[in-house]
Amino acid sequence: MAVKIAVIGCGAVGSSFLYSAIHQNLAAEYGLIDYNEELAQGQVLDLEDSSLYFDSSPRLKVIKNYQELVSYDFVVITAGRPQKEGETRLEMIRDNAKIIKKIAEDVRDSGFQGIVLICSNPVDVLTYVFQRVSSFKFKRVLGSGTVLDSSRLKVELSKGLGVTPSSISGAFILGEHGDSSLVTFSNIKVAGLTVNRCEDNHYPNSPFCCSDYEEKLEQVVSHKAYEIIKRKRATHYGIGAALAQILKSIIFDKQEVLPVSVLLNGEYGLSQVVLGAPSIVGKYGVEKIVEMKLSQKEMDKLHRSAQILKSNIDSIRELIQ
Amino acid sequence: MAVKIAVIGCGAVGSSFLYSAIHQNLAAEYGLIDYNEELAQGQVLDLEDSSLYFDSSPRLKVIKNYQELVSYDFVVITAGRPQKEGETRLEMIRDNAKIIKKIAEDVRDSGFQGIVLICSNPVDVLTYVFQRVSSFKFKRVLGSGTVLDSSRLKVELSKGLGVTPSSISGAFILGEHGDSSLVTFSNIKVAGLTVNRCEDNHYPNSPFCCSDYEEKLEQVVSHKAYEIIKRKRATHYGIGAALAQILKSIIFDKQEVLPVSVLLNGEYGLSQVVLGAPSIVGKYGVEKIVEMKLSQKEMDKLHRSAQILKSNIDSIRELIQ
Amino acid sequence: MAVKIAVIGCGAVGSSFLYSAIHQNLAAEYGLIDYNEELAQGQVLDLEDSSLYFDSSPRLKVIKNYQELVSYDFVVITAGRPQKEGETRLEMIRDNAKIIKKIAEDVRDSGFQGIVLICSNPVDVLTYVFQRVSSFKFKRVLGSGTVLDSSRLKVELSKGLGVTPSSISGAFILGEHGDSSLVTFSNIKVAGLTVNRCEDNHYPNSPFCCSDYEEKLEQVVSHKAYEIIKRKRATHYGIGAALAQILKSIIFDKQEVLPVSVLLNGEYGLSQVVLGAPSIVGKYGVEKIVEMKLSQKEMDKLHRSAQILKSNIDSIRELIQ
Amino acid sequence: MAVKIAVIGCGAVGSSFLYSAIHQNLAAEYGLIDYNEELAQGQVLDLEDSSLYFDSSPRLKVIKNYQELVSYDFVVITAGRPQKEGETRLEMIRDNAKIIKKIAEDVRDSGFQGIVLICSNPVDVLTYVFQRVSSFKFKRVLGSGTVLDSSRLKVELSKGLGVTPSSISGAFILGEHGDSSLVTFSNIKVAGLTVNRCEDNHYPNSPFCCSDYEEKLEQVVSHKAYEIIKRKRATHYGIGAALAQILKSIIFDKQEVLPVSVLLNGEYGLSQVVLGAPSIVGKYGVEKIVEMKLSQKEMDKLHRSAQILKSNIDSIRELIQ
Repeated sequence: MAVKIAVIGCGAVGSSFLYSAIHQNLAAEYGLIDYNEELAQGQVLDLEDSSLYFDSSPRLKVIKNYQELVSYDFVVITAGRPQKEGETRLEMIRDNAKIIKKIAEDVRDSGFQGIVLICSNPVDVLTYVFQRVSSFKFKRVLGSGTVLDSSRLKVELSKGLGVTPSSISGAFILGEHGDSSLVTFSNIKVAGLTVNRCEDNHYPNSPFCCSDYEEKLEQVVSHKAYEIIKRKRATHYGIGAALAQILKSIIFDKQEVLPVSVLLNGEYGLSQVVLGAPSIVGKYGVEKIVEMKLSQKEMDKLHRSAQILKSNIDSIRELIQ
Repeated sequence: MAVKIAVIGCGAVGSSFLYSAIHQNLAAEYGLIDYNEELAQGQVLDLEDSSLYFDSSPRLKVIKNYQELVSYDFVVITAGRPQKEGETRLEMIRDNAKIIKKIAEDVRDSGFQGIVLICSNPVDVLTYVFQRVSSFKFKRVLGSGTVLDSSRLKVELSKGLGVTPSSISGAFILGEHGDSSLVTFSNIKVAGLTVNRCEDNHYPNSPFCCSDYEEKLEQVVSHKAYEIIKRKRATHYGIGAALAQILKSIIFDKQEVLPVSVLLNGEYGLSQVVLGAPSIVGKYGVEKIVEMKLSQKEMDKLHRSAQILKSNIDSIRELIQ
Repeated sequence: MAVKIAVIGCGAVGSSFLYSAIHQNLAAEYGLIDYNEELAQGQVLDLEDSSLYFDSSPRLKVIKNYQELVSYDFVVITAGRPQKEGETRLEMIRDNAKIIKKIAEDVRDSGFQGIVLICSNPVDVLTYVFQRVSSFKFKRVLGSGTVLDSSRLKVELSKGLGVTPSSISGAFILGEHGDSSLVTFSNIKVAGLTVNRCEDNHYPNSPFCCSDYEEKLEQVVSHKAYEIIKRKRATHYGIGAALAQILKSIIFDKQEVLPVSVLLNGEYGLSQVVLGAPSIVGKYGVEKIVEMKLSQKEMDKLHRSAQILKSNIDSIRELIQ
Repeated sequence: MAVKIAVIGCGAVGSSFLYSAIHQNLAAEYGLIDYNEELAQGQVLDLEDSSLYFDSSPRLKVIKNYQELVSYDFVVITAGRPQKEGETRLEMIRDNAKIIKKIAEDVRDSGFQGIVLICSNPVDVLTYVFQRVSSFKFKRVLGSGTVLDSSRLKVELSKGLGVTPSSISGAFILGEHGDSSLVTFSNIKVAGLTVNRCEDNHYPNSPFCCSDYEEKLEQVVSHKAYEIIKRKRATHYGIGAALAQILKSIIFDKQEVLPVSVLLNGEYGLSQVVLGAPSIVGKYGVEKIVEMKLSQKEMDKLHRSAQILKSNIDSIRELIQ
């Protein structure tokens, strides 16, 4: 009742999430934190002008002190910085890991009792960092994982097949939220029908009905972020709505299957790595990891993806010990 | 723009649909017709007191003359009467077929150009009657089919499996909206996982993980209407929301897969019979029938169901020639 | 978070409220109680078939024991019986007061910590009974008051003036939810314009532009319940949505002005009586009573209405001591 | 049915509007135009990733040719450029007038039959330009006017008075969408109560209860855009939701009072000028201008504001003859 959501990091992603959440009446109050407090204040002023059109008519405010978090139900973290030109990806990872480490300490020290949703990149690594530093139960610390990637997959399939995304099932992206992710081709169905084999394809006009459909589809989805950034510098609307979707599953205790970033503990033969895997999400956060049946090729890709994530974690391990 | 929906038959089902539609901002105006015009007026007066709480703040009115239908986008038909004690089912069918025949003539003669959604029972037979009498294109005349039945299936599976209904796929009821329908067991999945075989069941606490799960589930779903009627005399809230869901697919041209009542023309080896089968629904009504892969047992059941429907149609054939 | 709403009394009003609440994603779980437990179970079965179409996909269940209420955030009470033919109104009041008294004891004894919303009639008297018997803080025990009546007033004005209800302000019904209520004519405005004086009327086609408009409007609104009951036996859709609206103000801590049933303590020169008066509603229930400026005629009517309510309370006073 | 909305100008304002509209299920399809077609494509790609979470699951596409507009119901125009450093305001006006003139010609030549909503600044002048160049009926060409400004006023009053914005009435900003606008102080009410005089103030903790409240409030509202721009460079979320609100009034034929930019024809003693004035908005666009009662001081301000707008129009008059 009277849900309160705090957002740490109020750039395009944080504010798009807030705009989406306000539209969907997720909370009665939103608290904003940004290292640039003037930016947080600017977002409050702009967003509050939209608040009155919705049933919740929520309040928005700048949180000036982490100790205020103790009264909040959720912390959504979008803070971090993109990779700069001329630096290595590992340099970016290290810097963002430091940022998340500091936030994790501050959130923990505030006495916050709620659920943490991380969206900062690289999301899988940073979710691991937050889990370790905060000592919160793993289920209370989720990353946005491959929820957005899976939405992109459904949108692309929807265009190709001519059916609305909600009528497509089994379409997940698994693994790293990044280049090494994989598509669960072998599971994709429409009304129980397999969509990825030409010989029995029921969608004769499908662009995927060709010998290289898997590769093409995988490429479109994995390149989409770059295509957006090339044209408008940032991607924020899709992820904003994806974050709201994850929170809805928790607020309404839905037990929805969502491919959030979770710590594996034996599932898929993997352990001690956080990556995007379909999980049942409810009021306690991650309630259960679902172990999909993957083809051998898919399983191999997943293990490669986990390997990359583990080496990323190793590169910043001294930060979290 | 400024969608107008007419409802013919304003009892519990018609008014529950209207209440649902008002809540979901489906239309700017609703017109109500009932052979008992005072009842239609009573529903207008009660429902309009809820209208101001929603974005659309729609107008409601009694339609006094079928000719007014020419300005409407949709006609939703819930008129008809239940089977009385002591009469045969065929007597009820005959009476309702006469009612729908008269409505079909009146709707056709009004110059109505929109889409017809039939919910009166037996819905498959009456959809056939309306299609024949009106001479409207088949795609413009849908029945609610097994949309409600399929929702009941998902609700039951959701309780058993502990996941939200939207995370369950391939769960359809096919065939007659009635006792002869079948469950598409062989297609049901959660995150690509089969849910109906014990040996590889990933839901260890599932009540369906036993040798007779199929029969039990099928029974729960097919008996649900009786269980509701026994306790509250009528079932109306579920079907009201199901009708709204179908209309949303048309209003937003969604291309959603919904098991509406459609005229088969060779699909599943059947022709000249209307029954519930997954179909892509969009702005023109039924855009395409999807042919699911059924097990032999399921296919046999579907053919038996079609046979029953055909004999029902035969029993009132002289009405529609 | 994960709001839980219990409903006591599951007839047409209780179930229409539930249908409205499900559509508006108010809660993650609904618990139903009825003295006829089979009816409660029937409503669960019918309503749950609509639940999957909405974001919250809530759970519904029958509450078998009042002690379960301790985990709920709200109790909405619609229990009670209508006036029977041949009996006096006071006999009906006495019977319903006994019912509410028992419920108040059971709710109190359950350890329930949330907010109570009463809709059973006569709502003002029964809210007083519940407040006294439960010893809950007054602000935690609201009646639906004249929220529905005020909606009816706005709907009627909307038809007459040709503007949507949300553009009409100052239009309240005050006093008893019943025949002795009054319309705040002197406060009604559209865009700051007075709507009730002919000489400066800006709505030339208004049906209210005549010397007896006040009486006519008051009559239409106060007779509306009878007009509905005459045609469909019960009024339930309007009140169902009104109850949901009140709960939204609490769930989202909106501080919305709603004419709920509140205990006056000096406001309008009245005390020790519960009646419908505009109040600011937020997360604690009634946060503040707003004292409107009334004309002398309106104030006189309000005092007469309070007098009637006080004599009703007197007639059942020995029950609550 | 199957509403189609085209947006011309796809920067922060255009895309925020689209994000808001998608969340509110306003249309089945959105078409985007920008002089930078790559930007339009980038917005399609980012926004479509949010589309699948909402009931309408709309399609988004880049419109490559103005002739496609003939199939659309709405054109929303946000194109234009801000004032540059070192140039006069009139230079900016002239440039944007040229842009809108060209768009008006292209929209007219496409055979577009729908309604135009302009948001480009200076919105009042540019609405006038579009009306003249297109020769469309005035009611079909609206500007966003002072809808956002009035929302800001209500948000500010809400914070000061402690009631939700929808419980505040008569609070409008009138005149130019810009520095010369005025607040309708004399009309502002909560539950019929005047909020702006200290002697009878019913809100004892109100920050407005002081001798200079009017000036302070007016300043906060009129400076808000600058305060936002100072902190985040642009204001876009508030206006995005305001545009969606205006379209809802048209799509649902609501007859809502909204202070859109309209051509006055004698109202308030003014003619041949477009400015923000409360108007009844419905399916034909502006259905009627409402003439509020203003104090002499307010009326004087309105005339001054109109004078400024007329001189702006005069400065670009040769463009539209």
